[in-house]
Amino acid sequence: MPEQSLPSWNDGPARRAILDFVARVTDPSHPDFVRPAERIATFDNDGTLWCEQPKQSQFFFAEARLEALADKDPSLRERQPFKAFLEHDLNTLASLGKQAAFEAVFMTHAGMTIEEFNAIAKVWLASAVHPVLHRSFTRCVYQPQLELLDYLRANGFKNFIVSGGGLEFMRAFAEEVYGIPTEQVIGSSTKTRFEVIDGRVQMMKIAELGSFDDREVKTENIALHIGRRPILAFGNSDGDLAMLRYVKSGAGARLALLLHHDDAEREFAYDREFRLSPLVEALDHAADFGIDVVSMKRDWATVFVD
Amino acid sequence: MPEQSLPSWNDGPARRAILDFVARVTDPSHPDFVRPAERIATFDNDGTLWCEQPKQSQFFFAEARLEALADKDPSLRERQPFKAFLEHDLNTLASLGKQAAFEAVFMTHAGMTIEEFNAIAKVWLASAVHPVLHRSFTRCVYQPQLELLDYLRANGFKNFIVSGGGLEFMRAFAEEVYGIPTEQVIGSSTKTRFEVIDGRVQMMKIAELGSFDDREVKTENIALHIGRRPILAFGNSDGDLAMLRYVKSGAGARLALLLHHDDAEREFAYDREFRLSPLVEALDHAADFGIDVVSMKRDWATVFVD
Repeated sequence: MPEQSLPSWNDGPARRAILDFVARVTDPSHPDFVRPAERIATFDNDGTLWCEQPKQSQFFFAEARLEALADKDPSLRERQPFKAFLEHDLNTLASLGKQAAFEAVFMTHAGMTIEEFNAIAKVWLASAVHPVLHRSFTRCVYQPQLELLDYLRANGFKNFIVSGGGLEFMRAFAEEVYGIPTEQVIGSSTKTRFEVIDGRVQMMKIAELGSFDDREVKTENIALHIGRRPILAFGNSDGDLAMLRYVKSGAGARLALLLHHDDAEREFAYDREFRLSPLVEALDHAADFGIDVVSMKRDWATVFVD
Repeated sequence: MPEQSLPSWNDGPARRAILDFVARVTDPSHPDFVRPAERIATFDNDGTLWCEQPKQSQFFFAEARLEALADKDPSLRERQPFKAFLEHDLNTLASLGKQAAFEAVFMTHAGMTIEEFNAIAKVWLASAVHPVLHRSFTRCVYQPQLELLDYLRANGFKNFIVSGGGLEFMRAFAEEVYGIPTEQVIGSSTKTRFEVIDGRVQMMKIAELGSFDDREVKTENIALHIGRRPILAFGNSDGDLAMLRYVKSGAGARLALLLHHDDAEREFAYDREFRLSPLVEALDHAADFGIDVVSMKRDWATVFVD
């Protein structure tokens, strides 16, 4: 029943574009029909599935990690960029630019096995509270997007996250919160190293960047991990533009969606000036590339999970 | 009905180990129960799911690609290692070692989009015939392994390929032949580059190695792509030993299987001396690492698909 689907989406062009697209690609008698194996949808995470203001959640987690590391090595408190993290100095962080700021985050996650990291991230996620929204970070996810993920799954889609966020940080909650298993999470990665500890093989996280999953690298990682061109993608920043264009460049029906944060009352209103992940080119050229812009203010009846 | 499962496996220790393992991890009342999301199985491809003698199938495909390239650039016929490919000179190829020989293969696959490569590989696979077995390459797959993949799927497992073979070559047939979708194929990769051609985004394959998915790199790629330690792995060479040990090092029930090619009558008998992918250490130390050795001669009632 399309009328009852996506209840937290207001009736309007965005909701109708989604319902119409899914109806066409799932109807075997329609020329736009796509067989289930090719119904691949890719979602950015920060700012697309959950809130990324005043900075991406992983920065808050990195501050907690850095506090633990600085207790052992106090010199970190005086070294940039770690000093900026520990002093909550958003201007200095933003001045680094997106990639350098995230790389500094990832460096605080090294020196443990991926299983140890997963346990630490889960403990943090279970107790940390967003400083502005005053709710746990995993409850800063968007209700309309949870409904969209469910709706796509019910229609035979396989949903992937393709985000600049850290692979293992997202894997610590993606299954429980989004219903997306670890193998469908693509993100920025640091390298791992095979080590034998007490006779058992462990994969150690090391402080060396694998890939920073942003902009064109998102499409390279889609090629590496998925091996098919998605038919639907959803983003919210210039970091997603390459992925949205890649999707729209395929033959047949394709849907590319861009969330515009224009709702200062219920969430935050920002785009060009958010230095940690600006939205400029994708917004200015959305129409040229056939990208549908979703307005949080206009298109969403509800913002956060209840 | 375990009695009717795996009909091409002879009753014996290998078949019983598989049936017993699957029974335990799928029984909610058993202490070894594993929830479906964690039932991850990883399979090597060459020599594990299909025949790799007298050399891996991708070498035959690379010869065909090289013939096409040499028509445009005849100097390739005089340059090593390409000369060895074109002259079917297995000794020279083997003397390069596994990684260098495969890297030369991958270099013949560059300069086209991943979608163009997929189409070329599919055309070749549809017509090429194995020179010794006189059947198409995709019919050089092992019937007992197709049954095992089906059996695991029916028991809630998600099967992945983790192979030194080229990612996109395997993706051209893995879904049709093994029922394994492209996103569950992990392999050696060359890099891709985002390009806009006639206004459309394409991912171009370039002649630069991403990773050679062998030995410890298999476990690094499992961490990158899957993000969980598998509970079952199946290999056939020293290139799989790191993966088999990684699986066996996890907590709870784990099954690691090693196929020994000891059947000169129905397939080939080889191990230590196969320079393109030797089996020495994994065979000598299987018992130390808790790896179950599968004898093709003893454990398989049938070898190839009918």
